Amino acid sequence: MTAANPTLKDQIMQNPDTGRAPVTVIGLGLMGQALAGAFLREGHPTTVWNRTAAKAEHLVARGATFTDSVGDAVAASPLVVVCVSDYDAVHELLDPLGEVLDGRVVVNLTSGTSRVARETAEWAAKRGADYLDGAILAVPQAIGTADAIILYSGPRSAFDLHEPALRSLAAGTTYLGEDHGLSSLYDVAVLSLMWNILNGFLQAAALLGAAGVDAATFAPMAKTGIGIVADWVAAYAQQIDDGTYAALDSTIDTHVAAMEHLVHESEALGVNAELPRFIKALTDRAVAGGHGGSGYAAMIEQFRTPSEVRS
Amino acid sequence: MTAANPTLKDQIMQNPDTGRAPVTVIGLGLMGQALAGAFLREGHPTTVWNRTAAKAEHLVARGATFTDSVGDAVAASPLVVVCVSDYDAVHELLDPLGEVLDGRVVVNLTSGTSRVARETAEWAAKRGADYLDGAILAVPQAIGTADAIILYSGPRSAFDLHEPALRSLAAGTTYLGEDHGLSSLYDVAVLSLMWNILNGFLQAAALLGAAGVDAATFAPMAKTGIGIVADWVAAYAQQIDDGTYAALDSTIDTHVAAMEHLVHESEALGVNAELPRFIKALTDRAVAGGHGGSGYAAMIEQFRTPSEVRS
Ligand SMILES: NC(=O)c1ccc[n+]([C@@H]2O[C@H](COP(=O)([O-])OP(=O)(O)OC[C@H]3O[C@@H](n4cnc5c(N)ncnc54)[C@H](OP(=O)(O)O)[C@@H]3O)[C@@H](O)[C@H]2O)c1
Ligand SMILES: NC(=O)c1ccc[n+]([C@@H]2O[C@H](COP(=O)([O-])OP(=O)(O)OC[C@H]3O[C@@H](n4cnc5c(N)ncnc54)[C@H](OP(=O)(O)O)[C@@H]3O)[C@@H](O)[C@H]2O)c1
Repeated sequence: MTAANPTLKDQIMQNPDTGRAPVTVIGLGLMGQALAGAFLREGHPTTVWNRTAAKAEHLVARGATFTDSVGDAVAASPLVVVCVSDYDAVHELLDPLGEVLDGRVVVNLTSGTSRVARETAEWAAKRGADYLDGAILAVPQAIGTADAIILYSGPRSAFDLHEPALRSLAAGTTYLGEDHGLSSLYDVAVLSLMWNILNGFLQAAALLGAAGVDAATFAPMAKTGIGIVADWVAAYAQQIDDGTYAALDSTIDTHVAAMEHLVHESEALGVNAELPRFIKALTDRAVAGGHGGSGYAAMIEQFRTPSEVRS
Repeated sequence: MTAANPTLKDQIMQNPDTGRAPVTVIGLGLMGQALAGAFLREGHPTTVWNRTAAKAEHLVARGATFTDSVGDAVAASPLVVVCVSDYDAVHELLDPLGEVLDGRVVVNLTSGTSRVARETAEWAAKRGADYLDGAILAVPQAIGTADAIILYSGPRSAFDLHEPALRSLAAGTTYLGEDHGLSSLYDVAVLSLMWNILNGFLQAAALLGAAGVDAATFAPMAKTGIGIVADWVAAYAQQIDDGTYAALDSTIDTHVAAMEHLVHESEALGVNAELPRFIKALTDRAVAGGHGGSGYAAMIEQFRTPSEVRS
């Protein structure tokens, strides 16, 4: 990494007007506007660029500087945050740029996969830029609040240098490690957990709804139940890491018996029984694999085994 | 309901020794022993019966009365709690009994389906017994503590009469309604939610594990994530009941794009991609059904629709 712009580091710490480092935001969709707005709120001199210039207007009214070209936007700040639809758009915008990327830190908050994140890190390295890949676990309205979580991965030094500015975006500013792919991976891991919880709730709501129980009636118990399971996660994690699956509560055999009830109830009430059947089939495999007497954490082996092997 | 034993109700409120109503527990497996133990701890005169008599020994040492026959056990108390392996065992034990059931309240905490619970209520009515069906959302060790939840359904009057005694078993003693099937239904609904959360965590742990991240490293973030989703449930429930699915945060189209990443990451890392594909396929149907611009709560329609219709 060469330092083509030796004043960049000084600029970060020593902005005379606000004491805040200048930042650039490229991409002013719903999320990019929220990011730029949070930087402005915290007093960062903020340069913005968007393909559709009109989306910058209210930010400019609040003190942001709009540049005519992406290159000028990148040149304006040592920290360049990019948030556009996808990685193709990222490359469309940044590939044509020359020297200007050298010595800067590019933080890419565009959603993607870990593979593409790693490729983009290599691409950035060739241009002399430090690269952090990020993932936003928040809606635009939450940006800049205590509820926002943004994950970062890539060089620790680049994160440490810009952490004060990045904290303007999210109280939950979290550095995961040097591997650029980690933020995308954690992102889908957390989303997967989220979809599964929501699907579990929807299956329950469909079942009870078919028996005349409102979802709102069930919601408080669901919330309690979700909270109870949240408290089990640490013990499950320990078992997964240790590879020992003693039944802390019920055995997998007991779970399977109850899953059978779930399938029957779903079929009898005429709601969708696919997810219940899927859950049971996956668990039946653990029993077939000799884990009937183990705790549910032994199911990790099913999740680790690619389905192709079995089909 | 006839009152063949007019003194029963007096007995409940006026036990001279302890001020606690006498209770009977039939079935002393892991759970039945915990139930009887909790009654004893709270000072209830406790009569027990089990097919294998030896399992009663330590309860008798603590003051329980063991009877030689099921009939004598039933005769001893106005409240008879049954907890055996399954409903077949319940009927094997109680069907041969005559008059003795008349006027008593039978609380069946054996796991089963809502249909069988309703059938058993009809069976009990023919014998003059009031019947409550119950479901235990707790492990034996939690019985009698603040962590235990036990659900009851059946006649409100029977529940109200015995609620003080039943509270000895679980702080979360919850009456659901007159329909005897409700406790079994809520039971599988909550279990389904639980399995889905655990599966979501296991999928995430498998993914991150394949990239070298320990489950224990991910656990705190998972716990936070689960807690965040728990807070969404009330709003989702409202939308489900209202049948309006405005996107409170992301649209289903946005979710599907991220699900695509989840599938790719799972395949690329060589972990099981079945659950990711299942989640995406179900969500694709919501898009095909015109709900791409709706919030995730619109997925309730997929969970309500029996899969047979589509296959
Ligand atoms: N919104 C959320 O809740 C949320 C949450 C977490 C993560 N994210 C991620 O954040 C990123 C942005 O999301 P968003 O909600 O801001 O999306 P959006 O409102 O659709 O905005 C997309 C942005 O990308 C720009 N863009 C797309 N293609 C381009 C191209 N070829 N050249 C130049 N600019 C291009 C658009 O410019 P124009 O204005 O000129 O069209 C716009 O600024 C996505 O990767 C998304 O997954 C969003
Ligand atoms: N354990 C849990 O974590 C848990 C949690 C929630 C709900 N439950 C439910 O509670 C019920 C009991 O579970 P458990 O854990 O106590 O099971 P368990 O330890 O296997 O005990 C089964 C009990 O049923 C009796 N039994 C079975 N078949 C019988 C028959 N034909 N005649 C007479 N007695 C018979 C057994 O008698 P013997 O002792 O003579 O074999 C024993 O008392 C089940 O429906 C279970 O689903 C358990």
